Parts: sequence; structure tokens; C-alpha cells
Amino acid sequence: MSTKPVASSLTLQAALTDVGDEIDRRFDTLLAIPDDPRADLYRAMRHAAIGGGKRLRPLLVHATGTLFGVDRDCIARVGTAIEAIHVYSLIHDDLPAMDDDDLRRGKPTVHKAFTEAAAVLAGDCLHALAFEWLADPATHPDPFVRAELVSEVARASGPNGMAGGQMMDLEAEKSRFDLATVTRLQAMKTGALIACSVEAGAILGRVQPEGRKGLRGYARDIGLAFQIADDLLDVEGDEDKAGKKLRKDAGAGKETFVSLLGIDRAKEQAALLVDQAVDHLRGFGAEADLLREIGRFVLARES
Amino acid sequence: MSTKPVASSLTLQAALTDVGDEIDRRFDTLLAIPDDPRADLYRAMRHAAIGGGKRLRPLLVHATGTLFGVDRDCIARVGTAIEAIHVYSLIHDDLPAMDDDDLRRGKPTVHKAFTEAAAVLAGDCLHALAFEWLADPATHPDPFVRAELVSEVARASGPNGMAGGQMMDLEAEKSRFDLATVTRLQAMKTGALIACSVEAGAILGRVQPEGRKGLRGYARDIGLAFQIADDLLDVEGDEDKAGKKLRKDAGAGKETFVSLLGIDRAKEQAALLVDQAVDHLRGFGAEADLLREIGRFVLARES
Repeated sequence: MSTKPVASSLTLQAALTDVGDEIDRRFDTLLAIPDDPRADLYRAMRHAAIGGGKRLRPLLVHATGTLFGVDRDCIARVGTAIEAIHVYSLIHDDLPAMDDDDLRRGKPTVHKAFTEAAAVLAGDCLHALAFEWLADPATHPDPFVRAELVSEVARASGPNGMAGGQMMDLEAEKSRFDLATVTRLQAMKTGALIACSVEAGAILGRVQPEGRKGLRGYARDIGLAFQIADDLLDVEGDEDKAGKKLRKDAGAGKETFVSLLGIDRAKEQAALLVDQAVDHLRGFGAEADLLREIGRFVLARES
Repeated sequence: MSTKPVASSLTLQAALTDVGDEIDRRFDTLLAIPDDPRADLYRAMRHAAIGGGKRLRPLLVHATGTLFGVDRDCIARVGTAIEAIHVYSLIHDDLPAMDDDDLRRGKPTVHKAFTEAAAVLAGDCLHALAFEWLADPATHPDPFVRAELVSEVARASGPNGMAGGQMMDLEAEKSRFDLATVTRLQAMKTGALIACSVEAGAILGRVQPEGRKGLRGYARDIGLAFQIADDLLDVEGDEDKAGKKLRKDAGAGKETFVSLLGIDRAKEQAALLVDQAVDHLRGFGAEADLLREIGRFVLARES
């Protein structure tokens, strides 16, 4: 990983803080603990959703949405919904039957802090809430935009996106995947929801599908760069800074970008992808600088 | 339970068969097994989704939708989506960490036939696919209708509906719930998605919210009658016919309608609810006979 500071600019640093605070505030309101037997369910959702993570997906909705002058509240609602999908996937991925992790974002995982049943249901509830929030008229006055957001997020998180990629990842422990299969797996597992966050910002901005091509190229490249950085972090990272268990891929006998390419070529490849991502934004001026900086941030992150 | 035959009329019998076949056919197409490492994920979804169950929810979408002359294909798409939500909830509820069931619809549960990880992910994928199908332009040409369907289904399945009710149900083993709390629990756990199926038929028919009042009353009452019948089945039913383990509530020390009311009063209450449900349909003529018969079917079922 690069040794330069993670947040290399004031704009990025401010956006990270603003978006992080906003998402925490929204989850705090939306997940208020009810005074009934569901209290632990809400505590479990809050445990996973509030006060942690880079909020990369809401940050991408924010950076793309502001590029097209979208209303701040709409952006934050969609960012919160997509983050809810991401958080639900982390809760389920950490389950004993899946990756069996005890630590996430420096805290005990949900099934450790609560019960496995609460973890399954907290994930299911965040999953449903994401779609409830997206389809709500408050998210956007135009129902066409709301239906399109639901379509995109559902596609990015289902069997052809995140959850399908996670299934392939579980199979990766049994089979020896080649670079093409690992690339496809990662494009689904983490890439799809990252790309969807950029796409969602453009949908809110009423950019037509043909006008989203450059943004889609940007999103695909940073999604892949993000995953290579993740694989490098697993090999080279600091567990305290990462807030989760590392050196897991090698232990599980899983092929990754790093096992297939080696550390040096993996780093080169990630840097190349970020350059390529930034190049996809050449049609935009300084207003796309935040997206450009997010590309560099994806590479330099330590958690 | 009543000793009269489950399907008391030709109309109901034909509708049950037609809807059942249609749903199986659609799942068969929508869940075609891909030739890649996700094959087991699709096999797990198909195992749970195809060839079983009463298809009560799609039947309700069908009965309500046809009442308003809705296109058959729209009805079937929405019925399939809502059934996917129901199936996902069964897969997750059967998990060892939840109700720990080995048998469902006379077959091994998904985590028994495959793995726990595949069961978690198959549930998650059906959950996402339901929203992808609902938001698809093929479901209805008007995006307002699609967004409203997504809203209703998300609300009925999240923490204020099905999944919230399941959490209360898990708590019911630890606390002694009174009749009001058991009623609320069941209205959420099973009632919400049943009511949503009727509501979805009316939304497809472009019935305005104020015009849905009678249908909503009908749906609420049959939802509760359905659950009382389920509690009676748990006490009095035949495991072979039910296709699942029975006598579970008493073993778990859970209060149910039957434990709180006794068998006789529970039966009276269920019959009263069905009469009340049918009475809510007094504004409709013979075109609502299928809905009326579904009310009676809910009471007489053996599985």
C-alpha cells in the first residue's frame, strides 16, 4: 500500500466526514429502537450500521449526484439505502456458516454481540428497509426514478451481483479459479454495488443510460482497484488499523489477485486501474475532482 | 380442523392448480441454473421455490387482480415476486440458528439438502430477485404502480412486517406473551405478507387507497384466521400431510392462540374471522367468490 496519507485533500477529507456523519445521523433516526420485543433486532441493526466503515458507497452517490446538481436529501436517502444493503451483506458474510468472523470494523460481529438468529434477521431487515427507503416518494418525486433505483440496487445485490459473487467466493475455497474467474467473482461481489452507487447518482441526476457510459467505466475500474487493494491489505495490512482479521485468503487456500499476480504486479494493476478510471472522467472538468480523488483513496486505504 | 375436503369448489380447485402450475413454471424459467460456480446457489433456490406449498399469496394476488380485470401476466409476475419473499423467509426461518427445522413441504430443508451458507445466500438472492422482478417495466407499464408495489412488499417483509414478527416469535420462547401481543406478532409475521398480496392485486387494478378498505379488512381477518389454523394444525395436525414437524410450539414453551384460548375457542375465533372477512366483501358480487372461498380454504387446510 502507498505510504501517503489516506485522505490526500481537504475536499475528500471533508466529504468523507460529512457523508459519514450524515449516514450515521440517518441510521440513528431510521433505526430508532422500539419499545417492544423487537428491541434487540434494532440494537443489532444499529450495532452494524452506525459508527463504522468508510461509507465509500454513499460517498460515490454523493460525488456523482452533486456532479449533476441533485438535491442533497435525495442523495443522502439513496446513499443510506445502498449502505444498508452493504451492511446487511457484511452481517450475513460474517456468520459462522459463511466467513465465520468475530471482528468487524474493530467491534464484535453482530452474531457475536447478539445471537446468530438476530444477525440473520438484522441482515434481512436492512435488506428490506433499503428497498422501502428507495421506493418512498421522499427519495425522488418521479416514480420512474424510484423504480429505476430499485431495479439497479436489486440487480447489483442479487445472484448476478453481490450475493452471487459471495457464493462464488465460497466455491473459491474448493476450486482453483483463474484470473478471469477471480475478476468476474470480484466484479460481482464488490464491484456491482460500487458501480451501482455511481449509477444511482446519475439516475438521480436524470442522466440517460447512454450518457452514463464514462461513469460506468470509472465505476468498474475503481471497483476492481478497490478489490485488489483489499487483497493487498489481507496480505500486507495491519489488523488493528483494518479492524478485522487479515491473512485469511491464503489460509483458506483461495486464489486472489495477489496470489495470481504477485504483490508487485497486483500493485501495478491497481494503480493502472485507477489511472484508467480517472481517464474515463475526461469529459468532466473540476466538478468531477471528488470522483478522481475517491479513485486515489480506494488505492491508499488502510481499512 | 374441519373434516370437509380442502378444496370445496371447482373454482377454487382450478385456481389452486392453475396458480400453482404458473408459479412453478415461472420459477423454473427465472431460476435457470447457470453453468458457473453459482450452480448450487440456483439449485438451492429451486429446491425451495419449485413444486411445493399452497401458493396462497400468489392465489390472493390472482383473485384480487382478476376482480379488477388486471392482465394475467402482471398478476403472475407479482405473485411470483411475493412468493419469492415468502420462500426466502421459510429458508431463513428453518436455519439451525432460527427454528432449526429439517423438513419443509415434505422435503429436507435447504440447509440440510445443501449447506447453511447456500441457505443464507439462496434466501438473500430470492429476497433481491423479488424486488428486481417487481421494479421491472414488464411488471406494469406505469412506474408509479411498480414503485408502490415495491413499497408495499418491502414494508410487509421488513422489521414492521414479516421479519419483525419472526424476531418477536423468537422472543416468545423467552417471555410470556398475552393475547394482544400474540395477535400483533402474528399480524406481522404472517398477516402482513398475506394482506400485502391482496393489496398488490388492488394496486395492479389501480384501486385508490380509500377504495381498498374492504379488501384490507378481508386480508387482515383471513391472515389472522390462517395463523389460528396454523396453531391448531401444530396441535391437532398430521405430520405426513403437513410435510413438516408439528407440536413445536408447546415444546418451545411458546404462547399461541391455542394455548391462550384453548382448542374450542380458537376454532370459534377462526370461523368468526372468516365470516367477518367474507362480510368485508359485501360490496362485491359473484366476481369476488374466489376470495370468499379462499377464506374458507384458509380454515380447512391440512398443511
